[in-house]
Order: sequence, then C-alpha cells, then structure tokens
Amino acid sequence: MIQYVLASHGNFAREALNSAIMICGEDARRVHVLSVQDGDNGIARFGEAAAALAEELREDPVLIMADLFGGSPFMTLLSGFRDTEYICLTGFNLAMVIQMLQYDGDDLEELAADIESMGKDISIRLIHKIVAEEEQDDCSVSFG
Amino acid sequence: MIQYVLASHGNFAREALNSAIMICGEDARRVHVLSVQDGDNGIARFGEAAAALAEELREDPVLIMADLFGGSPFMTLLSGFRDTEYICLTGFNLAMVIQMLQYDGDDLEELAADIESMGKDISIRLIHKIVAEEEQDDCSVSFG
Repeated sequence: MIQYVLASHGNFAREALNSAIMICGEDARRVHVLSVQDGDNGIARFGEAAAALAEELREDPVLIMADLFGGSPFMTLLSGFRDTEYICLTGFNLAMVIQMLQYDGDDLEELAADIESMGKDISIRLIHKIVAEEEQDDCSVSFG
Repeated sequence: MIQYVLASHGNFAREALNSAIMICGEDARRVHVLSVQDGDNGIARFGEAAAALAEELREDPVLIMADLFGGSPFMTLLSGFRDTEYICLTGFNLAMVIQMLQYDGDDLEELAADIESMGKDISIRLIHKIVAEEEQDDCSVSFG
C-alpha cells in the first residue's frame, strides 16, 4: 500500500495534516510527518528520522510531499529514501494534502500526477476585488 | 502599505507563517493570521475576527491568502472584506508565503500575480525515483 511522508521546516506539515483531517476526517495512519525543528542538530535529527522511516517503508511505494523544492527537508529525504520506490512532490498546499488523504487506490504514479495537476491548475486561484473610491456601488468580484 | 491576511481551517496558516519566518526571518508585523477552530461557534468567531480586521485595514490594500477556494475561511473573508480593496489568492503553500514576506514594494496587483505564477509554475514539482528490483545500480532521479 502507498505510504505518505509529509515533511517541512517547523510545524507546517503537521498542521497541514491536522487541518486536512479537520476538513475531511480521513484515516491518516499511513501518513508520516517529519519536521526540521529550530535549534541544535535539527537537521541531523531530521536525517536520522528520515533514514529510520525509509528503512521502515522499504517495501512500500512512497509519496513524499515536501514543503520546498531544494530545501533541507527535501534534500535530506531524497538522500534518505534513495533505496526506496518513491515519487516526491514539492510545494504542497492544503488541497493537495486533502487529495492525498482521500485517495484509496494503489497507483503511485497516477496519484502523484493527479495531485500535481490539481495543485497547479485548480487549487491556486486569484480573485480580484478592487473598490474604486468613487465607484463603490459598482464594485465587483472577478474570479480568475 | 500592503497588509496581509493569512487564513485557514485550524493552525495551517499560523504554522505556514512560523515556518516561513524560520526560513527567511522577515518582518511579519503586517501579516494577520485568522483561523477557524473546531468546536462550537468556530466559524462565527472567525467571522467576527474577519469583520474587525476588515474595519482595521479599511484604508489599506490587502492581500488575502486563503487555504482553500470555496472553503468557509475563504467565503467568510470575501464577505467580511467586501468594502476593502483586496486581492485574494487561494491554495497558498510555503513558497508563496515566503514570497509574500519578502516583498517590499507597494503594488498589490504585481505581487499577487507574481505569487500566483511562482506558486503554479515553480513551487509545485514532481520528482520520480523508481527503483526497479533488478536494476538498483541504474536507479536514477528525474526532476520534472
């Protein structure tokens, strides 16, 4: 079964999962959260946790969701999981975490491509609402 | 000056800001975090806080970053800020919050478009690492 690793600087990944559970209430037993905490040896401890988790998940396909492309959680995970079958997605947002939680299939490639596509094409939207000083009665909202 | 509202279900927005500060250490005095908490009257309390904040920021351009398009924080904020000049971006991730923190200009339209573009086109990336059982010596990482 697909296992999930959600990783970030600080508690961003943990609270992404908590907020996703608050919304959709899905089972999060296969979601493993890793955080780099501030202070001495934060990245070293993260590296140890990543290596132990990689060993634990060695037989399973893994979707890694990392906060930032090129950041230390991302780089450390790619190193730690080098002997595991994984796909890594960077730049997760809440909609992407919810989609991950709601997936009940076993096709890692399909899931990763669907989350990437939804993240880029649907979840990030710009909504303008400009109130002109003399036109407040005509103000409008445009969804772009 | 541009003011920023970062809003979510639960503590996702708060920890996005904390993790962004951990990485880039920028001044977050103009960032206002609003959260819908679980339990009785969570959304009612959020609505009251949004209305009070909208009144406080009435004279300033506002960039609202909401966790989910169509979610209750999003809908409540658009209602609360109806008399304010704002642009709302949904689906924020950590890279988008960092870009927001690092902006030192005063062009709300430019900032929102830049964050949207970076969020969609740069921050969300897919990295494949598939280890074939009999080809572990040839395994490779592809950045897509």
